[in-house]
Amino acid sequence: MKTNIQVVKIGGYIINDDKLLEAFLKEFSKIEAPKILVHGGGKIATTLAGKLGVQPQFINGRRITSCEDLDIVTMVYAGLINKKIVAQLQAMGCNAIGLSGADANCLLSRKRPVQPVDFGWVGDIINVNFEHILQYLSHDITPVFCAITHDGKGQLLNTNADTVAAQISISVGNHCTTHLTYCFEKPGVLTDIDDENSVIARINWKNYQELKDSRMISEGMLPKLENCFHALKNNVSKVMVGNIGMLSKENLGTKVTWL
Amino acid sequence: MKTNIQVVKIGGYIINDDKLLEAFLKEFSKIEAPKILVHGGGKIATTLAGKLGVQPQFINGRRITSCEDLDIVTMVYAGLINKKIVAQLQAMGCNAIGLSGADANCLLSRKRPVQPVDFGWVGDIINVNFEHILQYLSHDITPVFCAITHDGKGQLLNTNADTVAAQISISVGNHCTTHLTYCFEKPGVLTDIDDENSVIARINWKNYQELKDSRMISEGMLPKLENCFHALKNNVSKVMVGNIGMLSKENLGTKVTWL
Repeated sequence: MKTNIQVVKIGGYIINDDKLLEAFLKEFSKIEAPKILVHGGGKIATTLAGKLGVQPQFINGRRITSCEDLDIVTMVYAGLINKKIVAQLQAMGCNAIGLSGADANCLLSRKRPVQPVDFGWVGDIINVNFEHILQYLSHDITPVFCAITHDGKGQLLNTNADTVAAQISISVGNHCTTHLTYCFEKPGVLTDIDDENSVIARINWKNYQELKDSRMISEGMLPKLENCFHALKNNVSKVMVGNIGMLSKENLGTKVTWL
Repeated sequence: MKTNIQVVKIGGYIINDDKLLEAFLKEFSKIEAPKILVHGGGKIATTLAGKLGVQPQFINGRRITSCEDLDIVTMVYAGLINKKIVAQLQAMGCNAIGLSGADANCLLSRKRPVQPVDFGWVGDIINVNFEHILQYLSHDITPVFCAITHDGKGQLLNTNADTVAAQISISVGNHCTTHLTYCFEKPGVLTDIDDENSVIARINWKNYQELKDSRMISEGMLPKLENCFHALKNNVSKVMVGNIGMLSKENLGTKVTWL
């Protein structure tokens, strides 16, 4: 494939707001390059768990996935959110297909080892079926991934959506020039989490180490940036972090580079 | 495609029972011909609705789909059930892909007119994207359809799973020899609903009219048989009705024929 492939990951803040989601999907559907969307969860799963009396648990900001949680996130991520996004993209003239990792064996995972922490039904990706994904792109079909994967033995697994986006980008990036964009609630990586004007226009590995050591970057950003650098180290050509305004070029976000 | 295509529809009774579902999927995965699975809902959606305080409503045995119901069936059918089936088939060596009608625009519907009864967010299929479905089959990928469709304008719609199976069979049957099998809780069409030995081995249009007039067939069977005859009238080569034993040839079920 000659043109650049765009992988865009959207977080919960967009999914939580119907109007924002629609605005995002409009911008996303206008991207002419072959594109892949990866979506996180949003608070619908948490709300549903609450209504069902299932109390979600977190360790270091990461959800522990019980059997009940897995059913809930499978329903909400792979069902409700994924299909709503696909139906909206279809209405916008974007021929989307919603996928979990189990579908066509797109994302094969391994249940995370229980030491030092048992995260429950959480999976770490060990293989991406890039041939199948590239087939869609070559037919002008846009894959929309939720962050549910499988272990090949019949078990679904909850997976971090940022990591799903990075792993897909890396796998596809081995065969085509690939850009990865993390779309989240802030206009970029901030030096002051309360000041939206403190966007770092460009951040490289050395800056990142300094900013991390000096605790200038919020803790929640660290795993996201680790995913960014992991992607850059593994053949992804360009990595950006910012909000929905990046797609319409209203703002530039943060460009993450290796050097 | 030279070989016959097998379309199998499973109803709720199989989905309600994990062991029965696994046994079914084992038999289904052994079918060597290109195959398509269509699944109904089962009682998980009803149970979830109950827990959420959403009371499902029925008219003539058909569910009225409110906004809340639509969200619930999208979660349960397109999310939980569909992905569990796909993950299990993957483990059995069957490369399955789970699809709603919105995915790749596979099943385009029109919201059912509100007269004489407003069924809510219920759709009737107006187009099947058979090219996309045949692409999967030619790549040895098995589509697994839930009965959620879309209207092309961004709206998901709840659709009768028996009709989804019939419409897919008809559309594919215009291009390849296609067999349709309805797998439900009874060993076939019965003349006495309480006697499992009263299976009608073969039923044609004329017999059906007579049995219907004499009220020998239960009311619940009538829409299923209407779908059978509709499929036969429209290029589907063979239509069978029975239980899971049909797949393992333990019993023969009912063969529905036109003449």
